[in-house]
Amino acid sequence: MYAARRERLRERCAAGGSETALVTRPANVRYLAGAAPAGAVLLLGVAEDLLLCGSPPSGEAGEGRPDESLLVRVLPRAGGDAAVAAADVAAAQGAESVAVEEHHLTVARHRAILSVAPQLRLGDLGGAVEQLRVIKDEEEISSLRIGAEIVDQALGELLESILVGRTERHLALELERRLVDHGADGPAFPTAVGTGPNSGRRGHRPTDRRVEEGDFLSVCLGATYRGYRCEIGRTFVIGTSPADWQIELYDLVFAAQRAGREALTPGAAFRDVDRAARQVLDSAGYAEALPPLTGHGVGLEIDEDPQLAPAAMGKLDACVPVTVEPGVHLPGRGGVRIDDTLVVRPEADGGPELLTITTKELLAL
Amino acid sequence: MYAARRERLRERCAAGGSETALVTRPANVRYLAGAAPAGAVLLLGVAEDLLLCGSPPSGEAGEGRPDESLLVRVLPRAGGDAAVAAADVAAAQGAESVAVEEHHLTVARHRAILSVAPQLRLGDLGGAVEQLRVIKDEEEISSLRIGAEIVDQALGELLESILVGRTERHLALELERRLVDHGADGPAFPTAVGTGPNSGRRGHRPTDRRVEEGDFLSVCLGATYRGYRCEIGRTFVIGTSPADWQIELYDLVFAAQRAGREALTPGAAFRDVDRAARQVLDSAGYAEALPPLTGHGVGLEIDEDPQLAPAAMGKLDACVPVTVEPGVHLPGRGGVRIDDTLVVRPEADGGPELLTITTKELLAL
Repeated sequence: MYAARRERLRERCAAGGSETALVTRPANVRYLAGAAPAGAVLLLGVAEDLLLCGSPPSGEAGEGRPDESLLVRVLPRAGGDAAVAAADVAAAQGAESVAVEEHHLTVARHRAILSVAPQLRLGDLGGAVEQLRVIKDEEEISSLRIGAEIVDQALGELLESILVGRTERHLALELERRLVDHGADGPAFPTAVGTGPNSGRRGHRPTDRRVEEGDFLSVCLGATYRGYRCEIGRTFVIGTSPADWQIELYDLVFAAQRAGREALTPGAAFRDVDRAARQVLDSAGYAEALPPLTGHGVGLEIDEDPQLAPAAMGKLDACVPVTVEPGVHLPGRGGVRIDDTLVVRPEADGGPELLTITTKELLAL
Repeated sequence: MYAARRERLRERCAAGGSETALVTRPANVRYLAGAAPAGAVLLLGVAEDLLLCGSPPSGEAGEGRPDESLLVRVLPRAGGDAAVAAADVAAAQGAESVAVEEHHLTVARHRAILSVAPQLRLGDLGGAVEQLRVIKDEEEISSLRIGAEIVDQALGELLESILVGRTERHLALELERRLVDHGADGPAFPTAVGTGPNSGRRGHRPTDRRVEEGDFLSVCLGATYRGYRCEIGRTFVIGTSPADWQIELYDLVFAAQRAGREALTPGAAFRDVDRAARQVLDSAGYAEALPPLTGHGVGLEIDEDPQLAPAAMGKLDACVPVTVEPGVHLPGRGGVRIDDTLVVRPEADGGPELLTITTKELLAL
């Protein structure tokens, strides 16, 4: 599998005029090599493919294991730059050109590579590996599915506990502990828990504010499982009876999120999916309160291509996992976000596959 | 204070032939601007200093607040590159040259800057801000001191609880929860808890192994407080009576760590501090088992200059906080690490100031 991915990349490189490629971005290294120990780089060489590591791979579950068809070499000198060492290897193999990830490599490392291998012509690999990563195979989707089961479990358990009086920070830490209890490598991103005026804010960092009766409580968390990251977001109301404005706002965001989910079909333009969700909120007068995007791809990173945003170019393919996560935040009052991870599937296969199955009814807790 | 730091940087830039500087590395932005919202960059301009942010500063404690003497501007277009926008501003102000952080800026961003402002000459700021950051003022040291009190408290509470039968992961999560309980912004780095054969490994990722009678238990954790990161490492033995080899190994690492601490004086060469700790272990026959460094600077990042390592060049100054953290890990058996954060102080002021005061006696828990 990893060898096949590297073969596809090699074909793209050859088409771009580079015989070898040097992959430095950690998620790209992991995608092509099975593991990305800290500081490791992957050389798709003339003679053979080589994973160069700053320190020996730990072999721990969270890190992955290097593909057995790869040569793995550990740098002799601690603190050395594996990218520079890899360029040296490429030059020794007689390579004339190597494509590097200019969107990841720093100017200083680029210069260091040129200085050890001045005869090498350095090209740009651009986002070639990121593009390969967009469409997932069933094994990748299976890892996302298990991660989504873990977040559903962690969230379900939280909802059974007493919430009033606990701080956002405590709830976030408890959710992260539960993720790990249920087998996640770790959280996919810092857990966001917002109460009252903080509810509904995208990427909210938990504070010491305590949950109060009548609050909206919004939670966004994700699990990493075998390196793959998914996310879920839900908003609840605390107390027995939500206020009218809370029910209205919730119903509106729910309708927007459903519209976004229903727009997920192979061939749909990214911007059309975004528009489907966005126009529900727009036409209710919330144009100002809207985030720059209403969803994005997930995988080895939590924020991958595609972006579901007004100016995004391109169309969805089958087997692309994305989030759909519209929300409205009203300064001083709070707000609602609803966020699912789904996999785009053709109509014939039943349409989009919902990975995060926690209910989206408005629960009063 | 922030204005004075920027003034010092401006002088260095001028000496290097650049009239303006563009700071992109987040810890450097925070050091000079008081805050570093995601994607923010700082332009030390011809006319005025400008913090350019991708999204509005949140004003939350963990993020810091932008210095009031700075202009703060939020990019109009979400997803835009603040560094490119800053170069545009510099060019509009009539700047001819701008020094950038080539060790942080990617090749692609460097190129994007050149394409919006082709008339600008781009120089290299190098590690100028990192160098300014090495010697801390008393306010910075005060933040580290409070962080160290927090890690001491979190660790002290853990030691009072039952440990046998609990997993490394659980202990690590509990420590992180306690850090936040006591007021930390968050952990300074992923907490390492190692038991039995995993004990004493630097940067060990906690596993599901449970604490057993007779184990070594080594713990390394840190707190972030007002952005500043400190660390502590301790090793304990589980059960009533340590084995002879455990006492011997502990005493040896303790002696090495003490030698390192005692070598911390203004004017001491980095490599001499390293050698002081290292030779104790070397002469006992553990040369192979030693890590590449025995300590490092801490501050806004957990791993800053200086490096206390055999090949490090330079000398300690007063008011530089460093760790001293020798350890020995014996494959299959486990090991010992002892790690303190201290501030270098002159003899006349009482010598090195120990921030992490948890006892280093061998406790049997």
